[in-house]
Amino acid sequence: MKEIVPTRLTRYENGVVLERRSDFLAREEPLEIRVEGTTISVTMRTPGCDRELAAGFLLSEGIIKSAHDLFDIVTCIATTKAGAGNTIDVALRNPAAFDPAKLSRHIMTSSSCGLCGTTAIDEAMKRRKPLRERSRISAEILIALPKILSEQQTAFQSTGGLHACALFDGAGKLIAVREDVGRHNALDKLIGFALLKKLTPLAGHIVLLSGRTSFEMVQKAHAAGVAIVVAISAPTSLAVKFARKSGQTLAGFLRGRSLNVYAGEKRIV
Amino acid sequence: MKEIVPTRLTRYENGVVLERRSDFLAREEPLEIRVEGTTISVTMRTPGCDRELAAGFLLSEGIIKSAHDLFDIVTCIATTKAGAGNTIDVALRNPAAFDPAKLSRHIMTSSSCGLCGTTAIDEAMKRRKPLRERSRISAEILIALPKILSEQQTAFQSTGGLHACALFDGAGKLIAVREDVGRHNALDKLIGFALLKKLTPLAGHIVLLSGRTSFEMVQKAHAAGVAIVVAISAPTSLAVKFARKSGQTLAGFLRGRSLNVYAGEKRIV
Repeated sequence: MKEIVPTRLTRYENGVVLERRSDFLAREEPLEIRVEGTTISVTMRTPGCDRELAAGFLLSEGIIKSAHDLFDIVTCIATTKAGAGNTIDVALRNPAAFDPAKLSRHIMTSSSCGLCGTTAIDEAMKRRKPLRERSRISAEILIALPKILSEQQTAFQSTGGLHACALFDGAGKLIAVREDVGRHNALDKLIGFALLKKLTPLAGHIVLLSGRTSFEMVQKAHAAGVAIVVAISAPTSLAVKFARKSGQTLAGFLRGRSLNVYAGEKRIV
Repeated sequence: MKEIVPTRLTRYENGVVLERRSDFLAREEPLEIRVEGTTISVTMRTPGCDRELAAGFLLSEGIIKSAHDLFDIVTCIATTKAGAGNTIDVALRNPAAFDPAKLSRHIMTSSSCGLCGTTAIDEAMKRRKPLRERSRISAEILIALPKILSEQQTAFQSTGGLHACALFDGAGKLIAVREDVGRHNALDKLIGFALLKKLTPLAGHIVLLSGRTSFEMVQKAHAAGVAIVVAISAPTSLAVKFARKSGQTLAGFLRGRSLNVYAGEKRIV
């Protein structure tokens, strides 16, 4: 598995060396994403599903709107063996429409003194509409999701070092799982998978996050059209604020037989 | 406490509504860091200790080397109430030496095809030397640290949504704890605290991380001169590779009475 790397370690117990043994680490390598020759991101990620990561990142950032906007995604042939596979080149169907200066992070950084959560939400919502879909989901289905995810999380179980995201349909059937050392990357990979399979916008689907939910995570799900986001851990204040404005359902602390719903409760029956 | 925000939520248990109640969320707001008028970062962070966050970020990124390089750090007076406190202006003692084009992320993004973990480490090490300090620490002291941290983590306990970093001296005495929705921010705040107190380089000190250890976390600790980094969870492959090259001691899975040491074992006695 290219997602993990063997390592040697020394285990101490009660202050003394218990054993020297082998174990596995989550692999972390930089990935450079280029669009039409311009580097738009260098992210520290777990290798694997890099084309999906690039596609999902582009959708999340508003650079593309659907798979149709992509002409090609290729892994650059590296000049060194060690760097092989760590650069992705994306060609767009309409390169003339691509303006690196308009990337969302740049939009945020150019706002004048007085940047706040509301500004961040407004900037994100400028490019997209609230999700008005009327899908309903039973709390019983949501409660069952973490077990399905944990049965799939093989690399996580062997390293304890990966975040996971899973995509489910409205009946709670698992469609895909993606793992990464970075939580944003795991979600970008999952969204990119759906995009390349032409499943986006993901109306009626559910995304499950293994950890906490930040503003950017809810925003990424929204970019992919996911109205229901559930997580094992807590959301941040801005994640909840965004979900309430974007029309998304946001739940957290999905553990055992219970969960907390922070936004979009009407979808839960 | 400005680190947390009250919220309303609906708690479901066994598929039905158990109660509607109040709870607290970790606050997340953007912070724009400007150096000599140029925006160098917009990070989603938990408000509080923002001057420390800016100072630590500048040290981590190699923009400053010590508190002496800082002339002033001020919170910009916002034009809107909502955005108040979300912009930090840094003035340098020697503004002429500041070149935004030379920021480390930019250095990484400008490397040619073939980017890899080794490139990332080499770039980071170009600006710094391996830590050769000969401090020794007993495994018994390390084992005691998580309990000391958890006794301090008040905001985390009330929201479950914050990462924490703690600074200890070589005898295991707690010096400071910083919390944030972003793990990088929590460490930058801790490092910035030490920098502004003129404690850097932190020879003989220990940093404890509440979560996982990535490449960037070990690199930040290195920038502050911290030779011993320990974490409750797993390190990534590149974190271990970096620590072995930078002369740092890196331990993980610090739970109960045991820990795993991945690099710099010679410091543990």
